[in-house]
Amino acid sequence: MKIGIDMMGGDFAPLEALNGIHQYLEEGKAHLVLIGDEEKIKACLSEQQLPTAAYTLVHAPQVIDMHEHPTKALKEKQQSSIAIGFHLLATRKTDAFISAGNTGAMLVGSLYALKPIEGVLRPTISTIIPKENGKTGLLLDVGLNSDCKPEHLNQFAIMGSVYAQHILGIDHPRVALINIGEEEGKGNLLAQATYPLLKENQHINFIGNVEGRDLLVDKADVMVCDGFTGNIILKLAESLFEITHNKQIQHEYFDRFNFENYGGTPVLGISKPVIIGHGISKGKAFMNMILLAQKMIEKDVMQKLKAEVEA
Amino acid sequence: MKIGIDMMGGDFAPLEALNGIHQYLEEGKAHLVLIGDEEKIKACLSEQQLPTAAYTLVHAPQVIDMHEHPTKALKEKQQSSIAIGFHLLATRKTDAFISAGNTGAMLVGSLYALKPIEGVLRPTISTIIPKENGKTGLLLDVGLNSDCKPEHLNQFAIMGSVYAQHILGIDHPRVALINIGEEEGKGNLLAQATYPLLKENQHINFIGNVEGRDLLVDKADVMVCDGFTGNIILKLAESLFEITHNKQIQHEYFDRFNFENYGGTPVLGISKPVIIGHGISKGKAFMNMILLAQKMIEKDVMQKLKAEVEA
Repeated sequence: MKIGIDMMGGDFAPLEALNGIHQYLEEGKAHLVLIGDEEKIKACLSEQQLPTAAYTLVHAPQVIDMHEHPTKALKEKQQSSIAIGFHLLATRKTDAFISAGNTGAMLVGSLYALKPIEGVLRPTISTIIPKENGKTGLLLDVGLNSDCKPEHLNQFAIMGSVYAQHILGIDHPRVALINIGEEEGKGNLLAQATYPLLKENQHINFIGNVEGRDLLVDKADVMVCDGFTGNIILKLAESLFEITHNKQIQHEYFDRFNFENYGGTPVLGISKPVIIGHGISKGKAFMNMILLAQKMIEKDVMQKLKAEVEA
Repeated sequence: MKIGIDMMGGDFAPLEALNGIHQYLEEGKAHLVLIGDEEKIKACLSEQQLPTAAYTLVHAPQVIDMHEHPTKALKEKQQSSIAIGFHLLATRKTDAFISAGNTGAMLVGSLYALKPIEGVLRPTISTIIPKENGKTGLLLDVGLNSDCKPEHLNQFAIMGSVYAQHILGIDHPRVALINIGEEEGKGNLLAQATYPLLKENQHINFIGNVEGRDLLVDKADVMVCDGFTGNIILKLAESLFEITHNKQIQHEYFDRFNFENYGGTPVLGISKPVIIGHGISKGKAFMNMILLAQKMIEKDVMQKLKAEVEA
């Protein structure tokens, strides 16, 4: 099992990626392919040595900056760590790819350098939602698909359900449609048209609508919406950590809104595991991303997604 | 100035409405028209007397329950406190109407018993958003219009701006579009098409997009979105009060998420002030609703809305 890591991505590259790799290697078993500026990585490695059998270094002379235009940068910087990372993944030199770099470039690479799983209309990105009773929910889409059709949401429900089951370890995950009323027939046109599809979907355990007030409560495990709504919920939730932190409101619950700890978000619906981290990712986040990639490979989540979407 | 009050609306009717009226009369100057079951109200009044010059009692033998179908109930229960409340308002016997009863019936009554202000495409409802620096923002639409067109959002911006200025006392309120990116051109089709309208709108002080993470931060005073998105934000925000309360996380900031304190939400874009309260409204909420109605009448907010929308 080989996991590619963009060593140049994120605000603290390559140091924090390396810190995460150190933490990962205490338990992890994948061979790591470190992609980035050889000289810079070696300079860091001279201070923080890694067991040589644990990694391979792949030189990438270019970097895509955080503010570059994704499509343009990926096209023009074929020798960038992100472009090479996708190339290695597409040509089966690696089994997964992780980066805390330019999010747009990671999404463009996921959609175009790799292929969507056959039958998947729209790949999606999700986020963990900390439930107030200590459990964990999954929210999707959180921004890859800002305009959606009912059949897209119906597939997000399937993909989220597979992910919740195999990665989050939730049996028979309860799937809900995010809406502005409890009963069938409520909501905007999209929600009204999506409800019957979810209700008839044999691949999921659909429990109906959830409202804004239910998102942080343990009503549903997988919560489905369009990427516009989901992104606003995600960023509002993220802001709770910062606001409570700034106000010195200390509570274990709000600590769980520190999304950095979760590592990153996988792109679901594409042929290989790709994990996108926050630009501010530190060692712990990198470690969690590598562990997540390992788990996705071990559980063969992409194949399981394929089987559910096709069936 | 006469303000109509539905004495039968809310979980604690008519007692809490009466408590609110008592509190209001310590300072307030409007004549109050109490609408509801005469016997029940009189029974309460015998224990909690009001100065007789301060109010008029209007008997309404019927009540629309919280779970009745709004349109059907309003049509069939012409002698209900809500139907009579709207009738008094439409025939100029009162200058405003307040109820903590069936929200749907209040909205239907607002739209059909009264008239939209000329030129208003879609009346709207808003909510107060407590900003983390102590200030107060306005979010709209929060659920009356789940599917919107760009020109609707453009009018919400105008109406929200007038309300923020005259009722919240914010000079030159900063108006923002809720979106999933900072730059123009980001977002779903609705947001992409709305941005240029807001940018060119001479009636508002448009400052651009705000994201989910900016909602609780003091970036904008008036935040505009479709009613689906807004309702989910509102209910998520409301749940923060309950969650922090249950977890005994005590902080002045989260106390401000106790939306009950704000009283109710006015319906903007109709010809007269109508204020809809939470079913759980207690005395303080009723007092605040009556004060809000008084302020809306005094400042002639409906006329100011009309002037801005028409111009």
